[in-house]
Amino acid sequence: MPSRFADRTSVEVVEEGMLLAPKFDANGLIPVVTTDAATGEVLMHAYMNEAALLKTLETGEAHHYSRSRQQLWHKGATSGLMQSVQQLLIDDDRDCLWMKVAVAGTGASCHVGYRSCFYRQVSPGEGDIKAGRPIALAFTETTKTFDPIAVYGNAPNPTQL
Amino acid sequence: MPSRFADRTSVEVVEEGMLLAPKFDANGLIPVVTTDAATGEVLMHAYMNEAALLKTLETGEAHHYSRSRQQLWHKGATSGLMQSVQQLLIDDDRDCLWMKVAVAGTGASCHVGYRSCFYRQVSPGEGDIKAGRPIALAFTETTKTFDPIAVYGNAPNPTQL
Repeated sequence: MPSRFADRTSVEVVEEGMLLAPKFDANGLIPVVTTDAATGEVLMHAYMNEAALLKTLETGEAHHYSRSRQQLWHKGATSGLMQSVQQLLIDDDRDCLWMKVAVAGTGASCHVGYRSCFYRQVSPGEGDIKAGRPIALAFTETTKTFDPIAVYGNAPNPTQL
Repeated sequence: MPSRFADRTSVEVVEEGMLLAPKFDANGLIPVVTTDAATGEVLMHAYMNEAALLKTLETGEAHHYSRSRQQLWHKGATSGLMQSVQQLLIDDDRDCLWMKVAVAGTGASCHVGYRSCFYRQVSPGEGDIKAGRPIALAFTETTKTFDPIAVYGNAPNPTQL
């Protein structure tokens, strides 16, 4: 079945065109950056396939393709922390989406329990980088907004080693 | 040569550990979301390899790996629009970075001339999605901050079809 999205016929069409024509990668996926529409905080980075993008557009709620579970993923279906899409943007060469959302419930988007998946910042000590020593992280969120065990139980953890 | 970054020994270490241990993909790359540290706007989405990440940490200026040019890419080296890293975060499963930057000069980060690479939003007409019709985009930025021809001349366009 051909994609319902318009073709990429020239650089000018890709960069300046007015029809949605996302570029899915060799695995049929496009990365999606999700930010909190109110605060601008980056909440998560995940992937959509064509079905997930269409489901998101049809319902107004964020859907992704789960690479670990290899299936369509309605964000928040288990936790109740659904994401309502406020704005969806595409980048210059159309290989990435930026989705601004309002999060239901406690406002958290990370399966570990934090508000954002980005809860640690790089914090090297003096001289660590040039000396080749391990580089430290520091937590930017100190309190989990929910208990992952209570919410997800024994479901497989999506974090892959 | 072994990576200088710490190993990923368990899910707990990956999610709660305090050492930088990014997960590079099969091509040796990790996606990087870049936002404007002052406004929170998503400016671009690109990739780093280990060398680009170390160069970014060493210099405090954003470096990526250019997939189109297949080489280390010092952001702004041609245009003068360098990005000074204010904060660098990593996500729960450590396969994505979020970099907050201050942009030099006009503050633009997009090779097309716009401030952000995300200068178009999805704007479907009534019924377009369910009816399977093409989905429209609308520009969110209307004025380019610089003239790409004047800045880049005849250099190959990084947008690939």
